[in-house]
Amino acid sequence: MVTLRKQYAVARPVYSEDSFAEDHGKVYRLRKTTLDHMREYLTCDSKRAKNAALSFLPIIGWMKIYRVREWLLGDVVSGISTGLVAIMQGLAFSLLASLPPSYGLYTAFFPMLTYFFLGTSRHISIGSFPVLSLMVGAVVTRLVPDGGPPANITGFEGLTQDQQRVLVASSVTFLMGIFQLAMGVLQVGFIVVYLSDTLVSGFTTAAAVHILVSQLKFVLGLTVPGISGPLSVIYTLEKIFVQITSTNICDLVMSIVIMVVVFIVKELNDKYKAKLPVPIPIEVVMTVIACGVSYGFNFETRFDVEVVGEMVSGYESPIAPNMDVFQESAVEAFPVAIVGFAVAFSVAKVYSIKHDYTIDGNQELIAFGVSNIFGASFRSFAASTALSRTAVQESSGGKTQIAGLISAMMAMIVTLALGFLLEPLPRSVLGALVIVNLKGMLMQFREIPYLWRRDKPECVVWVGTCLGATLLGLDLGLAVGLGVELLTVVFRTQFPRCSVLANIPGTDLYKDRKDYMHIFEPNGVKIFRIPSPIFFANIEFFRDKLIEAVGFNPLRVLRKRNKALRKIKKLLQKKDDVTESCMKMEELDHPSDLKELPFQVDWRAELPLNVNVPRVDLHSLILDFSAVSFLDISAMKGLKTALKEFIRVDVDVYIVSCDACILEKLHSCMFFDYEIVTSMFFPTLHDAMLHVLDKDKSQGCVLAASKL
Amino acid sequence: MVTLRKQYAVARPVYSEDSFAEDHGKVYRLRKTTLDHMREYLTCDSKRAKNAALSFLPIIGWMKIYRVREWLLGDVVSGISTGLVAIMQGLAFSLLASLPPSYGLYTAFFPMLTYFFLGTSRHISIGSFPVLSLMVGAVVTRLVPDGGPPANITGFEGLTQDQQRVLVASSVTFLMGIFQLAMGVLQVGFIVVYLSDTLVSGFTTAAAVHILVSQLKFVLGLTVPGISGPLSVIYTLEKIFVQITSTNICDLVMSIVIMVVVFIVKELNDKYKAKLPVPIPIEVVMTVIACGVSYGFNFETRFDVEVVGEMVSGYESPIAPNMDVFQESAVEAFPVAIVGFAVAFSVAKVYSIKHDYTIDGNQELIAFGVSNIFGASFRSFAASTALSRTAVQESSGGKTQIAGLISAMMAMIVTLALGFLLEPLPRSVLGALVIVNLKGMLMQFREIPYLWRRDKPECVVWVGTCLGATLLGLDLGLAVGLGVELLTVVFRTQFPRCSVLANIPGTDLYKDRKDYMHIFEPNGVKIFRIPSPIFFANIEFFRDKLIEAVGFNPLRVLRKRNKALRKIKKLLQKKDDVTESCMKMEELDHPSDLKELPFQVDWRAELPLNVNVPRVDLHSLILDFSAVSFLDISAMKGLKTALKEFIRVDVDVYIVSCDACILEKLHSCMFFDYEIVTSMFFPTLHDAMLHVLDKDKSQGCVLAASKL
Repeated sequence: MVTLRKQYAVARPVYSEDSFAEDHGKVYRLRKTTLDHMREYLTCDSKRAKNAALSFLPIIGWMKIYRVREWLLGDVVSGISTGLVAIMQGLAFSLLASLPPSYGLYTAFFPMLTYFFLGTSRHISIGSFPVLSLMVGAVVTRLVPDGGPPANITGFEGLTQDQQRVLVASSVTFLMGIFQLAMGVLQVGFIVVYLSDTLVSGFTTAAAVHILVSQLKFVLGLTVPGISGPLSVIYTLEKIFVQITSTNICDLVMSIVIMVVVFIVKELNDKYKAKLPVPIPIEVVMTVIACGVSYGFNFETRFDVEVVGEMVSGYESPIAPNMDVFQESAVEAFPVAIVGFAVAFSVAKVYSIKHDYTIDGNQELIAFGVSNIFGASFRSFAASTALSRTAVQESSGGKTQIAGLISAMMAMIVTLALGFLLEPLPRSVLGALVIVNLKGMLMQFREIPYLWRRDKPECVVWVGTCLGATLLGLDLGLAVGLGVELLTVVFRTQFPRCSVLANIPGTDLYKDRKDYMHIFEPNGVKIFRIPSPIFFANIEFFRDKLIEAVGFNPLRVLRKRNKALRKIKKLLQKKDDVTESCMKMEELDHPSDLKELPFQVDWRAELPLNVNVPRVDLHSLILDFSAVSFLDISAMKGLKTALKEFIRVDVDVYIVSCDACILEKLHSCMFFDYEIVTSMFFPTLHDAMLHVLDKDKSQGCVLAASKL
Repeated sequence: MVTLRKQYAVARPVYSEDSFAEDHGKVYRLRKTTLDHMREYLTCDSKRAKNAALSFLPIIGWMKIYRVREWLLGDVVSGISTGLVAIMQGLAFSLLASLPPSYGLYTAFFPMLTYFFLGTSRHISIGSFPVLSLMVGAVVTRLVPDGGPPANITGFEGLTQDQQRVLVASSVTFLMGIFQLAMGVLQVGFIVVYLSDTLVSGFTTAAAVHILVSQLKFVLGLTVPGISGPLSVIYTLEKIFVQITSTNICDLVMSIVIMVVVFIVKELNDKYKAKLPVPIPIEVVMTVIACGVSYGFNFETRFDVEVVGEMVSGYESPIAPNMDVFQESAVEAFPVAIVGFAVAFSVAKVYSIKHDYTIDGNQELIAFGVSNIFGASFRSFAASTALSRTAVQESSGGKTQIAGLISAMMAMIVTLALGFLLEPLPRSVLGALVIVNLKGMLMQFREIPYLWRRDKPECVVWVGTCLGATLLGLDLGLAVGLGVELLTVVFRTQFPRCSVLANIPGTDLYKDRKDYMHIFEPNGVKIFRIPSPIFFANIEFFRDKLIEAVGFNPLRVLRKRNKALRKIKKLLQKKDDVTESCMKMEELDHPSDLKELPFQVDWRAELPLNVNVPRVDLHSLILDFSAVSFLDISAMKGLKTALKEFIRVDVDVYIVSCDACILEKLHSCMFFDYEIVTSMFFPTLHDAMLHVLDKDKSQGCVLAASKL
């Protein structure tokens, strides 16, 4: 039995783009102008107004479909579990921000109150996020350093160091909120797409290194001033190692015990995830034990262990942000705003896909903006979400932000009534818990060999971002990473692999001639494939590659021909007074003027009169534009020059598979003139090739056309 | 008479990429690894060594072919004309650098001495360039301000203000030379391609504004301290307008007269270019007249006109650069190095094309690096080339850098012997000459409407660079411009115009279905064209567009189907104990498991049992990858997810016209598994379509395949 292969059979006229459009009734659509888009965007009717109002208060949407019997229990259980984690993390992360621990509880409470109404995600847990806390902490320690006087800021007078720090943190948070709100209002939420997975991975790994280094002092029980700015990691490590001998053994032992226990239990939780009804809340357990032990044995006085200390009971009156701090920290607040939003949005997106509802990036920006402004007024610091806390909220059954609200209430209860219970908790315990949770982030180092094998530019982005953020600080490092990332996009399109194509005999297909054993290349025809967009940074590269591919420089050939023509004319006219030196160089670049000659010059034949002009064996050049997805003005100019140079040495140039939009743009930018004509465009390579072979045959040349 | 249309006739089997490669003997080439490239690059043999030596001393190349009789006269004449211009510009541009005028003459002399041996361009005139002078001047006035004490720099003690300024300028120049030399040695000369024409145009226009503002004080005869940093243009203008009433009328009148005369004569020069043997050297003439008048009428004492004043006669001993200045100005010296090289290289390229010789970017970097280091040691400031001076050198007959050497000698003669003649020259004359020469640069403002009409992103780059450089200063502005420019490249590929293609009846061609009147779209088949590379910033955009194009979200359909399946299974097994809430959400995303069912489920038919699942009318999705010039890892992950989602709802996905390199990369990155198979790749749209129609027919569906 023979399997009959399906047949591909086509019989149609050879088309150029022009004849094709004519034969098949091309519709010339009117494209919308910028003005039309603006007008459409600004049009307002009652429906749009209603939608806008609804989208501004997403709570209306999910409250309408709230299934009390099915969801409420889950929300309550989840709220309580999340609340415990939020309290722990609030205390721990406030150390990263160089603030007294009670302010972490504020951060777990205030921002949630507004996010509840404005947020579109139903699952993320609003509150502190270690990377953000660290970034805020960098500003705090810069403006209010541990040793030495604070920065010269109006409003610092009469405040204790902690109060100054709270003022700085809340002002930075306020400013970050303004940035987020502004971005939301301007609808530029899409900018987070520039934070690619690779960049975020490198960045968070660097953040983990920063966090690890900043927590070492607590774990070792040392007093190290917070250092910010470039190379702060190295300076901090230096300061720690200088006084490593003064390590507080009690802190160290306690930390190690806690880290080991938490690490093991977490691994077990992971391993028996399917069997356990809920994961063991080992961190809460260890905190409670540590609190008890520390209180019972009076660690604070007996072993000189630094404890959480007095918790502010209740809430303080709202404060206005400080304008001087705004000025000092504007450059740093912007990356904080971006990172805070990017993290929250990416986590929210994961859960929105999982639970099949939509989230709106711009509304999220508005929600976070308002929440941070509101929170900052009540002295909380930068809020976003933490992946681990959100995972707890979702996995323990949270369906909506009611869970979030309940977790905020838990934080409130601790602030108002139970704070004193946490007072004997050693800070080293908090540090140890932060460190043990860095495992996942630090494990991202394993991506380096993975990326290197698969995609070198991405590996460069990862390493660049991570090194930049580790050494220069998180804000500058983010900028460096973004720059490297954008450069890789440019790079990928800048030095692509050009190729010369050839026909595969018996088909209408054209492939790289190096890739196939049996190929057919008609004499005098070259097919050059441009495998990427053409723009300012690669147009020269393509021209060089094209000259390399055809084997001659058309401009040089044209000049030699024109010089030869002059010589011929001179000989004909017997005028010897015209010396070569007074000829204008510029005229050599013009098309050869054959009119005044009494005979036909055939540049391909042997030339008489000892005239030496390089022979050009090429009569047709076909450029495959199928991968050219855009052309900019510089590229258009360069392309025009290159095409003209070839046309002037009598090479017919054809462009095939050009995108319809690009063709339109070429028309609108006056690309065409008497030399470059629209009839050079063909829909497929094979159409152009058939056209070339036909034309060439009619000129009487002997070509292996019959092979096709 | 009927013109017979050429026929396109093809009959061949339908190919998938796999079967095509098999039938036609694809060659699997071994790509060079990074290591191979390194090895090749580092290989050394005697020929390469000789070439390297020769390319390091380009003078050997052109000295060998020097035609003394034909070229020497031209070089001498050109050298003298250029020398006059170089002296004038040297004096004038040293004012831009806030240095005493005699140092401009140094800049016209020392750098040329080394460029003569090392440079590959035979036509550019080495010396001061207004934009560079201004950039150096910004550092000079920042570190040694007019009013107030100089920066705290070791080495400033015991020096006059002018000496301090010369030290700063020469140190910056030295550092700039080091940067250029380093870039040349590292072979990164290609980075100038990022300075596109549009960016350079916007940047030089901003520079012209800076120059104009900085020269106003000389023209008005006012004493305004040099201001640097962001918004310096505005502050300087403010300071000028505050004291506008103290304008020196003599200076103003003289400047206006000179500007008007020079402007008119230059226009005439342009108009009668063809008729004049040489352009009228109006600037030299006006300078000589101004010198004479100022000396004769004793302007300095009678009208309180600021004159050039004492010229340093002869040369001073070399100085070492100052390390403190290096530290203070490292960030500013880098853009100076880039701009200096970029300008010189672009001018050199124009003349190398015109006169048909090759220049080497990396060797030029080395030449400028060495020249600036050498020059800085002898107290000259940043050297590059000026377009106007180079035009004089070339148009007056200069053939090689011998002309440049002679022009340097002219500067030397003035420094050594004739400097005193220039002492009575009013500074306002120099300012007026600088301003009148800004015409060309300021005329570039006319590009704004031109660019806006043709290409909006380029217009944004122009305006962004120009505004940035005007307001923030040239160095920061350049960085802003570069950032905007790179973003436009990313932007162009980020939001492309996706389209759904359809067959044009009677052909094998597929076009945007909105573009043609008569199209054929088989039922259940969608052809989606991705018109740009896919990478981290647009993969989500494409997924959204794809979902929009097919009209359903495959993940949602899959979940509904899986829910329905559970319902069916439950009904079949009569087990009611499995409630919906304890079902794992994750399992809903897995492929539907139809094995355990006793009957066949046809999702396209009406479903029994009140099961409500959205109907999918699509059975085949064809993705046109012809314009996808690269894919990064994020895109690969996203693409894989998207493809799987479609495959799991029983949509066959085909990818056509995929670049061979991308296919290779997909293989090496483990893109394929049991769901995503290599047989989904087809060489052309028509092959895939024929395959789809054939497959569909064999399944017994009724399709309008016969129309094709």
